[in-house]
Parts: sequence; structure tokens; C-alpha cells
Amino acid sequence: MFLVHERKMADLSALKAIVGPKGWSEDSDTLSPLLVEPRGLYKGATPLVLRPETTEQVAAIVAECRESGIPLVPQGGNTGLCGGATPNAGGDQVLLSLGRMSKIRAIDPLDYTITVEAGCILQQIQQAAADVDRLFPLSLGAEGSCQIGGNLSTNAGGINTLRFGNARDLVLGLEVVLPNGQIWNGLRLLRKDNTGYDLKHLFIGAEGSLGIITAATLKLFPRPREEVTALAAVRDVPGVIELLSRMRAATGDQVSAFELMERFGIDLAIKHVSGVRDPLSDVYEHYALMRVSAGRENSGLREIVEESLAAAMEEGLVLDAAIAESEQQAKDFWRIREGIVEGQIPEGGSIKHDISVPVTRVAEFIAKADEAVAKAIPGCRPCAFGHAGDGNIHYNVTQPVDMDKQKYLAKWKDLNAVVHGIVRSLGGSISAEHGIGQLKRDELAAVKSPVEMDLMRQIKNILDPDHLMNPGKVV
Amino acid sequence: MFLVHERKMADLSALKAIVGPKGWSEDSDTLSPLLVEPRGLYKGATPLVLRPETTEQVAAIVAECRESGIPLVPQGGNTGLCGGATPNAGGDQVLLSLGRMSKIRAIDPLDYTITVEAGCILQQIQQAAADVDRLFPLSLGAEGSCQIGGNLSTNAGGINTLRFGNARDLVLGLEVVLPNGQIWNGLRLLRKDNTGYDLKHLFIGAEGSLGIITAATLKLFPRPREEVTALAAVRDVPGVIELLSRMRAATGDQVSAFELMERFGIDLAIKHVSGVRDPLSDVYEHYALMRVSAGRENSGLREIVEESLAAAMEEGLVLDAAIAESEQQAKDFWRIREGIVEGQIPEGGSIKHDISVPVTRVAEFIAKADEAVAKAIPGCRPCAFGHAGDGNIHYNVTQPVDMDKQKYLAKWKDLNAVVHGIVRSLGGSISAEHGIGQLKRDELAAVKSPVEMDLMRQIKNILDPDHLMNPGKVV
Repeated sequence: MFLVHERKMADLSALKAIVGPKGWSEDSDTLSPLLVEPRGLYKGATPLVLRPETTEQVAAIVAECRESGIPLVPQGGNTGLCGGATPNAGGDQVLLSLGRMSKIRAIDPLDYTITVEAGCILQQIQQAAADVDRLFPLSLGAEGSCQIGGNLSTNAGGINTLRFGNARDLVLGLEVVLPNGQIWNGLRLLRKDNTGYDLKHLFIGAEGSLGIITAATLKLFPRPREEVTALAAVRDVPGVIELLSRMRAATGDQVSAFELMERFGIDLAIKHVSGVRDPLSDVYEHYALMRVSAGRENSGLREIVEESLAAAMEEGLVLDAAIAESEQQAKDFWRIREGIVEGQIPEGGSIKHDISVPVTRVAEFIAKADEAVAKAIPGCRPCAFGHAGDGNIHYNVTQPVDMDKQKYLAKWKDLNAVVHGIVRSLGGSISAEHGIGQLKRDELAAVKSPVEMDLMRQIKNILDPDHLMNPGKVV
Repeated sequence: MFLVHERKMADLSALKAIVGPKGWSEDSDTLSPLLVEPRGLYKGATPLVLRPETTEQVAAIVAECRESGIPLVPQGGNTGLCGGATPNAGGDQVLLSLGRMSKIRAIDPLDYTITVEAGCILQQIQQAAADVDRLFPLSLGAEGSCQIGGNLSTNAGGINTLRFGNARDLVLGLEVVLPNGQIWNGLRLLRKDNTGYDLKHLFIGAEGSLGIITAATLKLFPRPREEVTALAAVRDVPGVIELLSRMRAATGDQVSAFELMERFGIDLAIKHVSGVRDPLSDVYEHYALMRVSAGRENSGLREIVEESLAAAMEEGLVLDAAIAESEQQAKDFWRIREGIVEGQIPEGGSIKHDISVPVTRVAEFIAKADEAVAKAIPGCRPCAFGHAGDGNIHYNVTQPVDMDKQKYLAKWKDLNAVVHGIVRSLGGSISAEHGIGQLKRDELAAVKSPVEMDLMRQIKNILDPDHLMNPGKVV
């Protein structure tokens, strides 16, 4: 035992030497916030966090870890919700924090591209793009602290997916440190490149289990000049999807966000979040919150939104609607949407699901899930909201009013099984945008076909035969 | 030898039995058009073409081939330009034609999705989408005969890439027969799905070397209601790229196509293609042909295009311009672009390059390449044109006027080496949209890093250890 321990200390010293005195920490105050994931579902342990500054240091670390058999857990802003960036509790996994690799290596507005290091905070990239009059469209709640390396490793979604796709769709090229310590420089600026297999998509969404993304070349877009935000009370959930389809067609696919909200969630936001008011004069059950973006001023999109909503009201599809008259009013509408998440917290435990189904089956999913969870835990209060435009619903089930919180949360897996069963029956996904991490790893094999699991395992085994890259995550 | 031959005959009988009497042919008249690629660069041989009708038949064929060690070459519309669908000349590779699998399995305008079999002709899919008031945006010269399976296997580009991406960007899900004969059903209708590695991107663009794509679920879009086609004579090639960047911003990213044309190509089109006229009253060296699409009528885009071009003229960036006044005039403009390809044929041999560079380096590429090819073959006549908006230039070098055609074409590889050397120095790709096939296979190792080649070979070896799937192509 003593020998093993000494060996290990020597290995850790070698790792420290790679990054130099500023590039590591063993201090428990420094380490502890890095070892808990945001919801507190997982708590890990580690002897050491490494904070490399260059791709070459990352490569040397990975090579050294392979040599000494040390498992490595990469971490960005630690905002993921599936425990993908949390080491295990055993304390034998070294944490690799990418936060010091935060350079914007290049930006070219004429070329509509930006090349960034993994540790760049998402907001920093959005801002750099805006500074040269361009748009980087990835946008999500944690954008002030999440890092692009993590966004790409989890193929983040967010509110602009409908128009601009997921994180993977924004990538032109990647730089990756492979599990054998080699650097793959795939940082291409090319819009078209058909020379062999597309390797970048293998690393995007792999949650660090196939290698460490150290940099990326990303697509930029023209900055929108006009945005129209509208909120509509809609007849029912199928009506929300019908409205989405119409708005896409009427605006020429300029709908950049389309969110579903339901009464219960809005009530919670009004009750618990300061500044949130009921948005329309009457109270309705189902709402669509949409943003339409035009690339130019006086685009005429506002009139189109008005006309489309008016036509839908005449038909009874839309019951009432408001178009934001100012930027402040638009912010107020979005504040309701964000308030739904915040408003759930004071109501006790919440069992969460990040699911997607085909867009046209959103209504069926919510109806079936509402019925099933009511049967499973009488009195529980389902709150469905989110990116209806992508078929991606955050289905969070708040505990019954009088139930003990811990007793309720102990039913997490049971309730997941109920909801995910419905998702599967509708051809959906049990992780639309948050990934697998630790949280859903065991469930993955149940929802994927054996053929697909085999393929994934084969790829994992060939790239990372010693299973040292973020072990225990994804596969 | 006799025994080997008998064994082989028995194996072929087993393959024929899988598809039934209508599903195969040994007839040389049937086979011969399938064994030549369109440019005549490659001529293959085969004992048998199989024409399966179902995915299960494809799976049985692949399993049987693996069992008997028979190499398999998949083929769609046989319109590829790199010999990727042509068997070798040895006659021991069986041809697998997907053309009978041409069912549209599902189409849902509300969901903006269509599910098609590999043998569907691209135009058939475009039409099916239009019939339900939707757009399937993939569009390229061969659309009347190419098949979607081939489009996906080569990750086809075409003229709408700028706005809608390459073929891979249009795919939500795939059905693939793996090299071991298993069927991977990845036909998802989901816009967001982060459950493990994204396998579909491995098969897209793999040219059948990792498995056979048998069906796909594709994204549809709102159908454009208004299209503005404009042609501008531009100061120089950097000016073309500058104009592109401005038009993207001014229209709010509604530029769906942006093509570069040069004088020499236009002259050839005028000389050899009936109905092509010089588009402007004066003669210029460089032109941009653009199409801007709006999702609605009276979009105001025409005015924006007018204003932008007028402003660019005042600055001297644009020298003259015309906006199509009718659909016929728009067609006439596009006829020039298409005529460039046709117009080269009567001028003798043409050595072709399908390259891409970062958009902002297009001008540098053309200048350097023009200089280098003039040095390599004095009197040769370079014709650069194509998808400038994607940095994708078709750089076809027409032979000197008095040179013997065969003598000229014998220099194909030498000239490729010159041009591709420049492409590499600019961080470009030697195959932007046509793929690798046989034509560029040997060159691939020279342009890719050893790290990347290793990754590709590892993936090939694990999925297709016997190298029976389209052998001799890609890797």
C-alpha cells in the first residue's frame, strides 16, 4: 500500500511539473466548489486539479496520465446538470480544469469565423462577436459562466437552436487532445470539406470520454437588427405546435426562439420571482413565447407577426396575444420564462426531465406524462416548459404540497422511469440537451439499441482502450 | 482455380436468392453503364449487380458478402465525380445498386420532416416537399438523376450550402446497414438528442466505406415565397468576397446562393452554349451571381438588394449590376453559370479541381493558382468559378489551344499537385464537395496529418475489419 501511494505521489509530481506552480492546486478550499455539480446530486473527490494554459500542456498531461494509469476528468465552467464534470468519490481521478485556456485566437468578421480556446466563457465569445458586428448564436441560462469546451463536449442546445442548430452545428473545426496524448489539429476554417470521415462530430457531445477539446473554430452570423418578441395564449398544446409551424412559414423561417409555458409554471414565477407579472389581462393555460429576428431594420416582420397572430385569434387558435412594445417589455416576457425555473425552488423538491420528442408529438407527450405522474405520485405537480420549437421539453415534476422533500426526491429514478418510458414510446430522447454524464449513464443502455451501444463501445475502446478519459461517464 | 470459381458461383447464387429474380442482373448491356463514371476516368468490372428492394435484403446481402469474403460496391445514381461508385477492374467486386429502394416512407409538413429511402432521386424529394408547401434545399447539377443515398454518402454540397449547409446538415436520422450485416435504425425525428456519440455523422460522407445508408430522415424548411436574383460585375476577386459579406449582413443572412464567375468562363459559355448572352452592356473580368430568398411575398428584399448594390457601385466595389426582372431573366443568369461547365467541353481537355479555402482566401488562391499553372503548362487556360460563398471554387484548367488533348490530360496528376499544394498552404481542402473516391485516395494521406489518418483507419478497421465495404475508396 505504501509503495502504491509513493508511486502515485511521484506521478502527481510529474503532472504538477508539466503545468508549473501556477497550474495546479491541492487546496481543499480551491477544490471543493469544483467537486459538486450545480444541483448537488453528485459530490466527488480528487487529489489534484490541473489548470493547463496551453494545448501542449494538456497533451503532456494526457500522455503522462496514460503512462501512469491515472484517470482524468475534464471540467469547464462546471455548470452541467448530469454530473459529467464531477470526478467519482474515490479520490483517484485527477481534475483537468480548462479555464485558463481562455484566449480568443482569431476572429474574422469578413470570414464570419472565430477561433477560441476551450476555456472561453460563452458570454465572452458572444461579446467578441458583437464587438465586430457579428452574432454567435449559442445562448443558454449559464452563458455567464459556462465554457465553450463544455458547451461543445455536451453539444449544448439553448434557446436559439430552432434557427441556428445545436452547438455542433456551429463548429467548423476542432483541436482535440486524443486519449493517447496526440494533438489532432482539425481547426479548419472551411465551409465545405469532404476529405474522409468527419471526425469532429465524434468529439462533440462525447463529454470528454474520447479526448479533450482544447479549441474550436466557430461560425458567426450577421447580427440581427430587429427583434420582435411576442407572447400568445394558445388554445391547447397542439395549438402551440400549429402556431409554431405557421410562424415559421409566415416569417420565412425567422423564428429564432419558440418556448412553451403553462399556467402552473407561470403561477410559480409570479409567486416567487420579483418583477414577474401575469402577461395578459386574463389567465390562460397554455402560452407560446416567441422571438422573431430580422437581419435589418424596418424589416416588416413586426407587421407579419401581428397579422399572423390576429389571423390565429380569429380562428380561435390564439386566445390573446401581446407584442413587446419596448426592449424592456421583451425582457419582462423572457423574465417569466426564466422565472419558471427559479419559481420551482421554493416549492420543494423537483424531479427533472430534459427530454425531446418529434415536434408534432409534444402535446401527446405532455398529456400522457401528466396522467402517468399523477398516478405514480398523487398530488405531484408537473411543470412542462421549454423549447417547444425543437420538441425539447423540460418536464420538471414538483413535489406534492405536504410531502417530505427527501422522501419525494428518493423517488427520482422511479419517476424518471415512468416519464422516460413515455418518451421512448414516442420515439424521443431522454437527454435532449444536457447530455448523459453520470446521471443517465445506466439508463442509456436501456434506451439505445444493442447495435448502437456496441458501436459506441467499439469507438470508445479503440480511442481510449484504458478507459482513462472521464471514466464512468456516457458509456 | 476451378474450385475457387465454383465456390464463387455458389456465393453469387446465394446473393441472387436474397433479392429474387427481379433483383439482380449479369447482363452486360445492363451492367456497362453502371461501370463507367461520368467523366470516363474509371471503368470497372463486376460479375453481378444486385438491386435490393428492402433494408432487410441489403442486410442479408452484406452478411452473406462478409461470410464469403465478397467485396461490395454501393451505387446510387452513379453521378459522382471521383469514381467512388465504380468497382475496380478486377471483376471480383459485386455492385449494390440502391435504385429500387425509392420509397418516401413519411412526410410531415407540420413537423418539417421527410423520411426517404436511399434510392430516392433528389428531385423526387424536392418535389415531394414542394407538394406539401415545404422546401428541401439540397440542390445540385445532377439533381434529376443523383440519389439521396449517394448525396449523403458523399456529403453533397451544391448551390444552397451558404444558407442551409451541406447534405449532412440536413439530416436528423439515418438507417444504416453496418459491415457486419446488422441494421442500425437511427431514423430519429428529433431536433435535439444528446444521448451518446453522434454516429450518423460517421456514415455521412464515408462513401459507403463504413456501411450502407439505406434511409434517412431529413429536415424540411418553409418554402421561399420571393427570390431575388442579381448579377454584379465586381472590381476584383477580393471585392466579390467583400460584397458577399455585405450582402449577408444587409439581407439578414438571406443570401441562399453566391457564385463567382470570371470572364474566361463566361466567354466559353457565350461561345458554345446556345441562349447564353453577355449579361451586362459592358465586358468585365469578375462577376458575382447571387440569389436572395425571402420566406414571404413583398418582403422588401428586392429594395435591399438594389440599395446595397447601388451603394457598392458608388464606392467602386461594384462596376455594374442587374437585378432579374422576371423568372425568365433569373433563369438566363443561372444559365450562364451552368454554361461555364458545358462551355469548357468543346475547348478540349480540362483538368479539374474541386477545392475549398477559407472564404477570405479565395482571391489569394485564384491569384496564386493562376500564376502557378501558367508556369507549369504555358498557355493553359484556367477557369475559376463556383460557390464563392462557401470558399468552394471549381478550378478547371482548360488545355492550351494547340496542345494534344491526351498529352494534356496526362498531366492531370502533376497539375493537381501544383494546385493542391497552394490549397494546402492556404489551409484548404482538396475535395470540397465531391469526395475522395478513387480519384483522390492516394493524395489523402498527403494532405491529412498522420494523427487524422490514424483515426480514420482505426475507425475503418473496427467497423469493417475485412475491408469489404467499397474497398479501395477513401482510406
